[in-house]
Amino acid sequence: MDLGWLRRRFGDRFVEDGAVAALYVRDASFMEFSRSAIGVVFPEEEEEVVELVRWAVENRTPLFPQGCATSLSGNAAATAPGLVVSFERMAKVEVDPVDGVAVVGPGVKLEELNLALARYGLFFPVDPGSVKSATVGGAIANGAGGMRGAKYGTMKDWVLGLRVVTGRGDVLRLGCRTYKCRNGYDLVRLFVGSEGTLGLITEATLKLAPVPESAAAVLAYYRDVETLVEDVVRVRASRVWPLFAEFLDAPTSALVGLEEKNALFIGVDVNAGAEEKVINKLRGLLRGEVALEAAGWEASMRLLEPRRRLFYGQIKAAGGGVLVIEDVAVPISKLPDAVRGLKAAAARHGVPLLLGGHVGDGNIHPATWYRREEGPARVENFIRDMAELVAKLGGTISAEHGIGVLKRELAKAELGEAALSYMRELKRLFDPYNVLNPGKVLPG
Amino acid sequence: MDLGWLRRRFGDRFVEDGAVAALYVRDASFMEFSRSAIGVVFPEEEEEVVELVRWAVENRTPLFPQGCATSLSGNAAATAPGLVVSFERMAKVEVDPVDGVAVVGPGVKLEELNLALARYGLFFPVDPGSVKSATVGGAIANGAGGMRGAKYGTMKDWVLGLRVVTGRGDVLRLGCRTYKCRNGYDLVRLFVGSEGTLGLITEATLKLAPVPESAAAVLAYYRDVETLVEDVVRVRASRVWPLFAEFLDAPTSALVGLEEKNALFIGVDVNAGAEEKVINKLRGLLRGEVALEAAGWEASMRLLEPRRRLFYGQIKAAGGGVLVIEDVAVPISKLPDAVRGLKAAAARHGVPLLLGGHVGDGNIHPATWYRREEGPARVENFIRDMAELVAKLGGTISAEHGIGVLKRELAKAELGEAALSYMRELKRLFDPYNVLNPGKVLPG
Ligand SMILES: Cc1cc2nc3c(=O)[nH]c(=O)nc-3n(C[C@H](O)[C@H](O)[C@H](O)COP(=O)(O)OP(=O)(O)OC[C@H]3O[C@@H](n4cnc5c(N)ncnc54)[C@H](O)[C@@H]3O)c2cc1C
Ligand SMILES: Cc1cc2nc3c(=O)[nH]c(=O)nc-3n(C[C@H](O)[C@H](O)[C@H](O)COP(=O)(O)OP(=O)(O)OC[C@H]3O[C@@H](n4cnc5c(N)ncnc54)[C@H](O)[C@@H]3O)c2cc1C
Repeated sequence: MDLGWLRRRFGDRFVEDGAVAALYVRDASFMEFSRSAIGVVFPEEEEEVVELVRWAVENRTPLFPQGCATSLSGNAAATAPGLVVSFERMAKVEVDPVDGVAVVGPGVKLEELNLALARYGLFFPVDPGSVKSATVGGAIANGAGGMRGAKYGTMKDWVLGLRVVTGRGDVLRLGCRTYKCRNGYDLVRLFVGSEGTLGLITEATLKLAPVPESAAAVLAYYRDVETLVEDVVRVRASRVWPLFAEFLDAPTSALVGLEEKNALFIGVDVNAGAEEKVINKLRGLLRGEVALEAAGWEASMRLLEPRRRLFYGQIKAAGGGVLVIEDVAVPISKLPDAVRGLKAAAARHGVPLLLGGHVGDGNIHPATWYRREEGPARVENFIRDMAELVAKLGGTISAEHGIGVLKRELAKAELGEAALSYMRELKRLFDPYNVLNPGKVLPG
Repeated sequence: MDLGWLRRRFGDRFVEDGAVAALYVRDASFMEFSRSAIGVVFPEEEEEVVELVRWAVENRTPLFPQGCATSLSGNAAATAPGLVVSFERMAKVEVDPVDGVAVVGPGVKLEELNLALARYGLFFPVDPGSVKSATVGGAIANGAGGMRGAKYGTMKDWVLGLRVVTGRGDVLRLGCRTYKCRNGYDLVRLFVGSEGTLGLITEATLKLAPVPESAAAVLAYYRDVETLVEDVVRVRASRVWPLFAEFLDAPTSALVGLEEKNALFIGVDVNAGAEEKVINKLRGLLRGEVALEAAGWEASMRLLEPRRRLFYGQIKAAGGGVLVIEDVAVPISKLPDAVRGLKAAAARHGVPLLLGGHVGDGNIHPATWYRREEGPARVENFIRDMAELVAKLGGTISAEHGIGVLKRELAKAELGEAALSYMRELKRLFDPYNVLNPGKVLPG
């Protein structure tokens, strides 16, 4: 392996120090996927990324692309002795408020982007719990979702164009700067959610949304989760299109500083002046006890703050154990069944269970954990039952966090052999030497 | 070629009558792309589609899939002696109003779908001018857009899952029934806009939207198109997110029964009760003469009716000539430049020009025509200049109608050789025998 070229080309932007590299080999998942990397490189220009790929191919050395490494399934972990490519330094932001687009580097954090947009009354709607750290490149490559998925969808709905470097070192300009674009096959969205396994993103053209005039939101407490999710169904059935509908079960609520009751956060974007009417409509529909209400965009976003502490609550609860955060989605009408079934499965296998998630789009994040010394067997059994339940309900075991290493076998069952074999051929087409994030997404 | 099998398998759903076949060989484009087909076949089940593909491969006979053949670039034309596959009879509609999804056959017309949704207070937002005839399968394969693209995007934003039969006869189940879905690579969107060249769609799972509580709209007349499009820019810059912003230039307005002035239709979805405020805001922003206003969803949609007659107006104007409807999009801030440039190019080459389109998302449909006896030379020169202009403005020559036969060379220039070569490999992967709609999308 020719490290000399890396040293010459990148100077102090190629870091070989083992202690620094150790900070970059893993992502936010608690499982042990990582190996030691030979180093971390910080490209600043697309041309450097092209040369890195050529180097990787010549040296048969894998590249592990990384934004902020907040992935939860090993997506961003360096699972083989290779080179971590951190996109931190490719962080330009160009906003065109009239066109409603931003052209950004992959290393820009979603929160930084939103700060740059605020002065124009615009925002970028995709809002993962990790929004303060998550980068545009990582969010695209993960196909990230988040709190506002119920109304605004996920990354796939907000990427207009990409520049990517494939595993053959080719630079592809994909998509358009315009909202409508039909030039050839839609490869933009093949890269959204490809977790760095098909190409490295060097630039993205994002669609932006105007900040809604206003919003209205409530926090309601429920004695039981089933009634809570049934109420989400009622709200949707009554033709209110929630901007967000988030929930935490009672133990999780306590962990994030709320009352120890099942909590539903529900918000709707409205015209200025319509807040009260919508809050009253929600009060009429929800059978829980409405503990807080918010009128206005900022106030509605603030109401969500405790929800943003979910991850820290889960870590606290796991108390040093290995935390496993799952990511299932079911059709909304099946939410009550899903919650009942998950609780029953956890009880059956004697594993702890915390429930929370984006119920507005049917997305639940069941969290469980095990102590290292006891091993993962019971949790694995729980996950097997979870996958069976979700399949029966017509859902998916992979809603927004991606496949990474962790979900490859579960994804296999859900996708079926035919779709998988085409996906394998796509991987060969874009990355024939398997240098881009090997061992992710596709089962072995 | 073994027609015996077709006759046995499909009975009277295989039509060999030349007169009937002649009705199916062409689409709505006026150019002469079509050849005579050996017949038309009307599958009713996915298994029949699989067998058709196998038959096509064995007999090296192309299949030309068709919804309602309203394409405008030869996308659905039978350009070689082959078999037209009409999806008319695969037209089931299953709506789940709580989940907010519909599972439909490819042959369902968008208008039929919306009729089925109306009772639930839901609608399918993608709204091409051809909505009364266009099918779900055709709209997906074309990646169709339309009137509400400014806010609701295009087909790519509303397809959650697909069943497709590839050119190798494999059935792929892609995507999910849930709004969030991250299982493997996103092949759903590779098929959206692939114009039947990668696979035949046998079922689609669509995302639905609640009908907004209300809407407000105005029709304003302008002395010059430049001020009109500048006003669209002003509206967007003032943080109003139009549901639609459509325009017709003065001659076109007259053709569809309006005053002979440049007409801007602009509509916004609002909470009930906020209509007047929004209309006043629009009145304050628009420098044109507001001739009509509408409060309420139905009324706002009705206000658009004259705009829906655009195509008939264009046909009338062409007076038996060969009508060519182009489909460009530019970044919204570049609309005034685009309109000025298009007019100058038309004047330069002495071709007629009617302008209209979906200015809310930067999408203009320049229409021109030539008499058969005079030939297309001047129109071709105009189109060359148009493409150059659009490239200079950072736009695309293919916003929503697709590539078909007509746009292949223009697409080539825009895509560049690298992207094109990957697209060619994708075509080989999904349709190695080139039996699916050959001669479309990719340049020869
Ligand atoms: C507390 C917490 C809450 C979360 N909440 C959500 C949530 O609500 N919704 C959600 O969807 N996710 C959530 N996540 C998961 C994760 O944060 C998101 O997917 C996030 O968008 C990842 O961004 P990142 O910059 O950290 O990417 P990384 O983890 O660094 O990378 C993500 C993937 O993209 C690849 N990659 C990174 N940069 C590039 C590039 N330039 N080119 C090609 N590939 C690249 C990586 O190899 C990896 O496969 C959460 C995670 C945490 C820890
Ligand atoms: C008056 C008029 C107005 C229009 N306005 C708009 C507009 O505003 N926006 C817009 O985007 N378009 C517009 N169009 C173009 C066109 O109507 C749309 O793209 C429409 O969605 C096509 O639907 P269709 O059923 O007629 O498809 P077809 O023309 O039959 O087919 C479209 C493409 O899909 C393929 N195909 C059809 N069915 C299948 C299937 N089951 N599987 C795989 N491939 C299939 C065909 O081979 C073809 O390539 C307009 C056309 C007309 C005539």
